[in-house]
Amino acid sequence: MSEGLRRSWVESANDAEADFPLNNLPCGVFSTGGGAPRCGVAIGEMILDVAAAEAEGLILLEGGPLLGQGAWNPLMAAGPAAWDALRARLTELLAEGAAEAARLEPLLVPMDGARMHLPFAVAEFTDFYAGRHHAQNVGTMFRGPENALPPNWLSIPIGYNGRASSVVVSGTPVRRPWGQVKGPDEALPRFAPCARFDIELELGAVVGQPSDGPVTVAEADAMIFGYVLLNDWSARDVQAWEYQPLGPFQAKATATSIGPWIVTRAALEPFRTEAPERSRELLPYLREPGPMLYDIALSVELAPEGAAGEVIARTNARELYYSAAQQLAHHTVSGCPMRVGDLLGSGTISGATRDARGSLLELSWGGAEPIAVAGTTRAFVADHDRLTLRGHAQGAGYRVGFGACEGTVLPALSDPYAR
Amino acid sequence: MSEGLRRSWVESANDAEADFPLNNLPCGVFSTGGGAPRCGVAIGEMILDVAAAEAEGLILLEGGPLLGQGAWNPLMAAGPAAWDALRARLTELLAEGAAEAARLEPLLVPMDGARMHLPFAVAEFTDFYAGRHHAQNVGTMFRGPENALPPNWLSIPIGYNGRASSVVVSGTPVRRPWGQVKGPDEALPRFAPCARFDIELELGAVVGQPSDGPVTVAEADAMIFGYVLLNDWSARDVQAWEYQPLGPFQAKATATSIGPWIVTRAALEPFRTEAPERSRELLPYLREPGPMLYDIALSVELAPEGAAGEVIARTNARELYYSAAQQLAHHTVSGCPMRVGDLLGSGTISGATRDARGSLLELSWGGAEPIAVAGTTRAFVADHDRLTLRGHAQGAGYRVGFGACEGTVLPALSDPYAR
Repeated sequence: MSEGLRRSWVESANDAEADFPLNNLPCGVFSTGGGAPRCGVAIGEMILDVAAAEAEGLILLEGGPLLGQGAWNPLMAAGPAAWDALRARLTELLAEGAAEAARLEPLLVPMDGARMHLPFAVAEFTDFYAGRHHAQNVGTMFRGPENALPPNWLSIPIGYNGRASSVVVSGTPVRRPWGQVKGPDEALPRFAPCARFDIELELGAVVGQPSDGPVTVAEADAMIFGYVLLNDWSARDVQAWEYQPLGPFQAKATATSIGPWIVTRAALEPFRTEAPERSRELLPYLREPGPMLYDIALSVELAPEGAAGEVIARTNARELYYSAAQQLAHHTVSGCPMRVGDLLGSGTISGATRDARGSLLELSWGGAEPIAVAGTTRAFVADHDRLTLRGHAQGAGYRVGFGACEGTVLPALSDPYAR
Repeated sequence: MSEGLRRSWVESANDAEADFPLNNLPCGVFSTGGGAPRCGVAIGEMILDVAAAEAEGLILLEGGPLLGQGAWNPLMAAGPAAWDALRARLTELLAEGAAEAARLEPLLVPMDGARMHLPFAVAEFTDFYAGRHHAQNVGTMFRGPENALPPNWLSIPIGYNGRASSVVVSGTPVRRPWGQVKGPDEALPRFAPCARFDIELELGAVVGQPSDGPVTVAEADAMIFGYVLLNDWSARDVQAWEYQPLGPFQAKATATSIGPWIVTRAALEPFRTEAPERSRELLPYLREPGPMLYDIALSVELAPEGAAGEVIARTNARELYYSAAQQLAHHTVSGCPMRVGDLLGSGTISGATRDARGSLLELSWGGAEPIAVAGTTRAFVADHDRLTLRGHAQGAGYRVGFGACEGTVLPALSDPYAR
């Protein structure tokens, strides 16, 4: 399936456990010492300042400069030929024995000392619900095992529009929200801090090309620039009270954290994998011309304040029932225009086993069965918990990693209306 | 309640039936003869090219120029002091007897010959469900009269995120979409052109200031720059099959038409009116410090191809149960950041009587009772129908109007995947 490690003159990139070997070349935006955010590409433990490399003429892109704006949107807008040209040139520049190594070396910044920013300007954010185990688990809790999967679930990649303004980069603290909540035994709702604050382990697809009418699954796949880790923070008590009849709203609007690195579709090509068997034949517009899922190992780590983190879930992106390409195709079926920078969350990715569940709602079975973690227990996230998503595709002697998508929970404000 | 007509040297603005007297001064973006879109303000039957007026020094705004970019976002971002300064200056410049009339006259463009564009760049679009009669009607059709209003409806201004990329300006044709549909007697869904294409008569609130945490209703009100007519085109058959459990998605993504003119909050001040009596006491964060609804007469006109239009519904914006200020306050309660250019749809505005219903779904009672219009009948919209929303607030001897929000339905494509 996959080729071997491509060796780089950046030594830390040649470690078999490194997230960012030459095979990867993910796209981020970084700054150092309070400077302006700049486009960078991860290589080993370093970031190559590609904005500087372009400015110095080491990278030449048609229609450029494309890398000088502190966001990857201009490169994405330039289209697949530009994506391929950049990847080819970086592969050349960073390969072992590259003639330009000496000129590039001063443009490498240690990842340790860099601050990461949102890698792209998020145009709009859509969140899907494409994990079958997740839908089955949540449905069983809310409607019983007989009615767990909604009738449309096997026909439609169910999704809803989220809030782009609430997307934040890994490392941004997340404040526990207030909201309207009503317990099953309460007659009226209360206004209170969320008591069931949760995470959702997802993969986000970054739309790199626009569309203006229905697109096929193959065309949709070609529009995707790359993927990021995505944690869709969820206020479960708020969600339970608000979501009928028009879907989740404020329960999902506090924050959605994304990883700092867009792993390009090109880097993931060796890891494509078939969709699971279809329980119901899909309508033709949703059928896949080839493997559209990816074999990406995923994990969730929870670290209580002052304690070491512990992995609370391990799963894989191949557990999804619908691919991002299918979701994007479905997104356009009404004629809905898609734009460069649109972000599509996969939906929570859970596996078949208990320790493969991508949300605390599932791990603790609605809070009824708290899990043991780092010497304590958790039904939902506690204040000061640090949650970290990680993911990588495993090649022969190398991996294509996503880095970490991390967020620490801050306590709710005592009075959200105090200024 | 309201002052009288403010007279202008632009004669057509002094007609008691004119939508755009000096009292109004709504904000649009226009072009002529294939030129670039420019900010303009409607006065009578003319548009004042305010971009040119600013460029010529007739309008001076702190931090300006603010009107040269073909969208009202820069002026909105400049804040309420700039909004007030512009309104005061335009009132002065266009008043009867104004010294600058001769210099301004060349900057007037006949509305007839201008093409209108989206008046602002829509950041994100949220659609609410705040019309009680509408919620009651739709709920009765779907769940019976006992369970018509969802349990949370009297406590929460229910809303869901829509798709900003699908917002179009009045005059843009709207193509009947394809989608997944499944009749109650069908075992499996089909992929078909929408057979129950509908309109929704709404008012849209334009958010003119950002927020970064929960805001009060009073603060939310102050963030609103103005209001537009809004038609949320809806594919009812698609919606029925897709909307459980996460809300409407592709059914609402084909297009949302907005009127070309933002009627400012300042122009609507004389028409504020109290909210209806509350059936359930609202939580403190949703209580209104004063009247937040507006007395705005609204109508829907349907014109079959080649026929004269006929009004099929008349209602009023005071029928809403929740104001835009309450909706915006609720939108921020989770900490969701709001941005300049966010658009909030009110939800369909229906009155108590049959001829006051703001959607064909309600007018034809789910299609069961087609209505007579222009010598034919309609359950839902037919191809080539032209739908026009209108609205105005009635003052003493003048009105503050919204102009028309119009869209013509094009037939579905024979093959949506043909290129």
